[in-house]
Amino acid sequence: MNKIYTGKTKDVFELDDKTVLLHFKDDVTGKDGVFDPGENQVGLQIEGAGRAALAMTKFFYEKLNDLGLNTHFVSADLDKNEAVVKKATVFGKGAEVIVRYRAVGSFIRRYGDYIESGTEIPTYVEVTLKDDAKGDPLITKDALAILNIMSPETYEELADLAKKIGDVVKDELAKKDLDLYDIKFEFGLIDGKVALIDEISGGNMRAYKGDEYILPLELEKILLG
Amino acid sequence: MNKIYTGKTKDVFELDDKTVLLHFKDDVTGKDGVFDPGENQVGLQIEGAGRAALAMTKFFYEKLNDLGLNTHFVSADLDKNEAVVKKATVFGKGAEVIVRYRAVGSFIRRYGDYIESGTEIPTYVEVTLKDDAKGDPLITKDALAILNIMSPETYEELADLAKKIGDVVKDELAKKDLDLYDIKFEFGLIDGKVALIDEISGGNMRAYKGDEYILPLELEKILLG
Repeated sequence: MNKIYTGKTKDVFELDDKTVLLHFKDDVTGKDGVFDPGENQVGLQIEGAGRAALAMTKFFYEKLNDLGLNTHFVSADLDKNEAVVKKATVFGKGAEVIVRYRAVGSFIRRYGDYIESGTEIPTYVEVTLKDDAKGDPLITKDALAILNIMSPETYEELADLAKKIGDVVKDELAKKDLDLYDIKFEFGLIDGKVALIDEISGGNMRAYKGDEYILPLELEKILLG
Repeated sequence: MNKIYTGKTKDVFELDDKTVLLHFKDDVTGKDGVFDPGENQVGLQIEGAGRAALAMTKFFYEKLNDLGLNTHFVSADLDKNEAVVKKATVFGKGAEVIVRYRAVGSFIRRYGDYIESGTEIPTYVEVTLKDDAKGDPLITKDALAILNIMSPETYEELADLAKKIGDVVKDELAKKDLDLYDIKFEFGLIDGKVALIDEISGGNMRAYKGDEYILPLELEKILLG
């Protein structure tokens, strides 16, 4: 198999012209040995992290596919830490889509003068560009169109799908008395339609039980255990 | 007269319950003695800067008022470096509205991976929050609504007015063979309607003659001289 990409937490191998294989690694993002889902660099290895991320990804993607929400997911093999997914075209050099239910993280870093950290907000979608050197800058719907990254129509399709998928995750967490504060997605185009790509794991979201932040591996245990 | 605000480049005095007097100072923004329209601090004094900024403000605001575009401007006295303007309510703790015709400045600092500096773009409006400590963060239409800074309807009214006013400035500059790259405005509400407030001066815009950036005082001379 031909490796076509070495990611921070996953390696990607070519299968055929329509599908690729993702191998989930035990590397997690963070800094100075401390896990941080917002970090862009690999900070540490945690045994079983890859398997747990894949198990959660499988759990959510199968649910999303059943609901008819468009994703790249085909199948997963937990014993091999592998998933098969459809090839997708990313937006520009990669865009991240954040769905927020409470004001935390970079939302507070930007707008903390206007809102208390942790405040519930109406579901809010924002897009940032993957650009480590520039700190993943926020970008508006209008600027996405100007830079030919995404048309306004595609933006609306993406924002609508992101909210629906965010709500599915939020509802699943709520069943375990967990509260989803925000979640980061990646989207791409498959056959011209917006589809969720990449993983859905503890490392992509902030979940709380009451006032207590739940670490990704713990979150995966609570959800699937 | 009661001074109600000491600004970076202007002092503000109460006149009555509907109007205030602006006194234009010779302080200009910059850093280490070098003028920079993007800086938030006063960096130097230039003799005649206040008068030139007021003259340009008067020139443009009279034109805008004649065109029926909503502004706070009532009158100006160039000999006293003073203008009388209507009181307005600002959005949140103050918002800045940038109209862009070419990709320069913070647009390139954010999105330079996608576009060459200086490239012409379709007229683009963006809003940043006045917050020196946070570096005037960009904010989307949706987030403005969530933070109760501006409703989506008011945003549309503001963006439309900003484009129209930007085009008036661009057209005036074009008459002198100058090219407007971007311009920064402030807006407020007067009697519930969006109105342009603050000054329109060389320090709020980037103008070029061919490839040459024109300094604010020089720009004011070319336009009014």
